[in-house]
Amino acid sequence: MARSDETEPHDGGVRSITRAIDVLTLFDTTHPIRTLRDLVAATGLPKTTVVRVCSTLEARGLLLRTSETTYAPGPVFLRWAHLAASLWDVSDHTRAVMRELVDKCGETVNVYVRQGMERVSIAQEEGTATVRSVVPLGVPMPLLCGATARVLLAGAPNELLERLAGAEGLDLEPLIRTVASTRETGYAVSHGERELGASAVAAPIMAHDGRMLAALSVSGPTSRFTADRIAMYVDTVVTAARRISDQGLGSVEAFL
Amino acid sequence: MARSDETEPHDGGVRSITRAIDVLTLFDTTHPIRTLRDLVAATGLPKTTVVRVCSTLEARGLLLRTSETTYAPGPVFLRWAHLAASLWDVSDHTRAVMRELVDKCGETVNVYVRQGMERVSIAQEEGTATVRSVVPLGVPMPLLCGATARVLLAGAPNELLERLAGAEGLDLEPLIRTVASTRETGYAVSHGERELGASAVAAPIMAHDGRMLAALSVSGPTSRFTADRIAMYVDTVVTAARRISDQGLGSVEAFL
Repeated sequence: MARSDETEPHDGGVRSITRAIDVLTLFDTTHPIRTLRDLVAATGLPKTTVVRVCSTLEARGLLLRTSETTYAPGPVFLRWAHLAASLWDVSDHTRAVMRELVDKCGETVNVYVRQGMERVSIAQEEGTATVRSVVPLGVPMPLLCGATARVLLAGAPNELLERLAGAEGLDLEPLIRTVASTRETGYAVSHGERELGASAVAAPIMAHDGRMLAALSVSGPTSRFTADRIAMYVDTVVTAARRISDQGLGSVEAFL
Repeated sequence: MARSDETEPHDGGVRSITRAIDVLTLFDTTHPIRTLRDLVAATGLPKTTVVRVCSTLEARGLLLRTSETTYAPGPVFLRWAHLAASLWDVSDHTRAVMRELVDKCGETVNVYVRQGMERVSIAQEEGTATVRSVVPLGVPMPLLCGATARVLLAGAPNELLERLAGAEGLDLEPLIRTVASTRETGYAVSHGERELGASAVAAPIMAHDGRMLAALSVSGPTSRFTADRIAMYVDTVVTAARRISDQGLGSVEAFL
């Protein structure tokens, strides 16, 4: 029986949407323009599929064809750029505390939130040293590596720990113990868990109702995270996170 | 014959991607949070379809579920926000000329680019009066109404005029005449074409190779666009557009 145009695949189009997001995700500040060949290689999809996805995104202004075979993010993103930046913004007070923290530690300061089984930075103030930690805003990172991840896990429901352990094929017990110990200390320190040579100190930002909203982190090269400095970083980060918790994180709280 | 999970509908998933974009487009600064009911009503799609689209977008961080039945744009948009804002930015010089133009005219100044058969504002400096023109950045607007549209059409290839006339069911001849006359005068003035009571004066921003890159416009309430003021606005806008053309529009030129 011939299928009509109304026919959908079994997944209800989920796969097509995911592919379109995969294509869009390949564009970043170091790759603002991508060739069709690039996109085919990076997605592993047939060329005809990539062309079809790109044409659809182009028709709606999400991609712009900069030549016969190259694409860039289109101006329509400005609409969401404006919206996302206003929704996910931290307060001026939070920003000021973050900058003070940079002044005190010299290292990069981030505010991370949990996004399902991942975490993303929503605000960053860069450190002052030439060799500094820089992460892209809004890009999902793992929830099982690093001080920031441990702090965010400590604020997650147990149900999430179970899902995470299941998804990653990990034992639940050690995960629960880690979370319990992070809850007790109220901060976390990590060295080279996510990236070799990268260290971080993180503490939780709490809502007035006791929910954990986000994690405040200071991160930089492991060589500068010496024992005496870490003691100072922990004090400073915990105090800064408490000040942000007291005054409120900003409009973004509505979504956390 | 049973269809496998690999089966795609005849349109190759185009419709699913378009639906996902339709859903995302419903979020703006006045509607940062939308209920499922809202989304179903606005898209006219079955609830199960909207739920599936939203779940897919949620899984990838593009939407965030703020409650059982409400959604908001997710933090992953920050990644593209940053990227789009840096790619589509106009130069500091352009920004300064735009602000001078606001100072001189008191009205809102925009830089519009053509996007296929539509136009979008990529930069805006708001006017100083209480009643002022404000358009959202990156939101497609028609290419057949208004002074800005006429200026952009004057820089478009004839093939586009044919497509546009075909798509809108218009006679090609009058369209070509309008374009020819706009090319001759080098600016355009409109009153209430796109929106009743809204007037605009626009002039082209050109690349050094003679291509038209964008249109610079001054817009505001028709009641303030009196004959003598319009003469001044035309002079001022044409001069400002020429200054921007001379110095370059900014990094965005690479995409135009």
